[in-house]
Amino acid sequence: MTPLELRQQVRSGAFRQPTAGYCGPYAQANLVILPQAHADDFLLFCQRNPRACPLLAVGEPGQWQLDRLGADLDIRSDTPGYNIYRDGRLASQTHALHEIWRDDLVVFAIGCSFSFEHMLSEAGIPLRHVAQRRNVAMYRTNRPNQGAGPFGGEMVVSMRPMKAADAIRAIQITSRYPAVHGAPVHLGDPALLGIADLMQPDYGDAVEILPDEIPVFWACGVTPQEALRQARLPLAITHQPGYMLVTDILNSSLAAF
Amino acid sequence: MTPLELRQQVRSGAFRQPTAGYCGPYAQANLVILPQAHADDFLLFCQRNPRACPLLAVGEPGQWQLDRLGADLDIRSDTPGYNIYRDGRLASQTHALHEIWRDDLVVFAIGCSFSFEHMLSEAGIPLRHVAQRRNVAMYRTNRPNQGAGPFGGEMVVSMRPMKAADAIRAIQITSRYPAVHGAPVHLGDPALLGIADLMQPDYGDAVEILPDEIPVFWACGVTPQEALRQARLPLAITHQPGYMLVTDILNSSLAAF
Repeated sequence: MTPLELRQQVRSGAFRQPTAGYCGPYAQANLVILPQAHADDFLLFCQRNPRACPLLAVGEPGQWQLDRLGADLDIRSDTPGYNIYRDGRLASQTHALHEIWRDDLVVFAIGCSFSFEHMLSEAGIPLRHVAQRRNVAMYRTNRPNQGAGPFGGEMVVSMRPMKAADAIRAIQITSRYPAVHGAPVHLGDPALLGIADLMQPDYGDAVEILPDEIPVFWACGVTPQEALRQARLPLAITHQPGYMLVTDILNSSLAAF
Repeated sequence: MTPLELRQQVRSGAFRQPTAGYCGPYAQANLVILPQAHADDFLLFCQRNPRACPLLAVGEPGQWQLDRLGADLDIRSDTPGYNIYRDGRLASQTHALHEIWRDDLVVFAIGCSFSFEHMLSEAGIPLRHVAQRRNVAMYRTNRPNQGAGPFGGEMVVSMRPMKAADAIRAIQITSRYPAVHGAPVHLGDPALLGIADLMQPDYGDAVEILPDEIPVFWACGVTPQEALRQARLPLAITHQPGYMLVTDILNSSLAAF
């Protein structure tokens, strides 16, 4: 299935499930959609926090077709699930945005760890949450984001346990992909990030860490969702976690070197 | 002082001390000098163990002037100290090789961690052993080298304690320099390398590891010296550890990308 074929199935309602494992060579994106009044601040927030919020594309006000992300793409219908936040609270979930679309809405597409996980798997690095078909474990940290306007909060990280040699190789591989979170932000002692218990993730599912493994932490695309909630905007739209926008961008084309 | 000026002081006997901290932008080299009868096996050993034995240059039999390493260079006199091994035992130490030089001796120049330490310092990554003016801590491991002829043994590693973010950055930086050991081979638990106590290094000096630091291990240029000792060749010559050959090769020219 090509990304276009998958998006067409999403649009028709035939595909309504998490997108992990589909169209592996292609980048999937986190979505943030905001009224223009808050877009400049959010753009600045992403610029100041590039590890958590690497931007793949930003639309013009009202623009729902972003050629940069894919052919015949309709941002209002091509993601398998959307969260609608009002005043910082999850107000509803939907499969299409046509009814609430406005001419002042600005689309932000943010890189997703599925891209680098694909690269890690291709390099033979085991990923336990993938093998066990779980969502990756994610944690709020004590590391403050660089603020911009109403957007602030702390960095959210995802964690993957690895043997040391795999962790070193994973740092090499993910360093090539700053557009999809890049290198890890931490490894080893979780307490240094303010994480009390790795077995109690704030999002996603816990996975076992074996005695010869080390936890490796990447900045996570859930960071902007936390910042959005704390900003309490009258309206903000995101994808549902795990239900990503599948783009036509080849992961390999994102390599910085 | 240029590398040529330093080598001239070495040759005249004016410089007889460890070379750490001199000519920082230029690569320093580990030396191994062997009779031609063992050179092919040792070349194969280096090829099979490139993390520990990255070759900067290999001479022809009898050749003591290696243009690849530097201008007006005499390998018999331009290193501040030499170890002469006979039957695997340190038989003598000397400042010049003219008296024992033979037309069948082959020079191997092997990359040295001083090069990547220079790159790490330039990047603002603290190195405790440098700050404390100690030799780096080195350890024998339980990781067997890939054997070739009489050469085998286990990998020797050097260890530098770092905060996690610095360790990640150090992996990125050293990955660019495979000619000087490249990326670390391990980080975290020393027991996984068969190291019982980091405070008891097999070579060099112990350094403190702070609670927010992680030990990071690189393959070490002492590995071939261990292999040489175990091979018990009738004759083998090396530099004295810390008394390196200072070359005209800019470290920055060794970057793989």
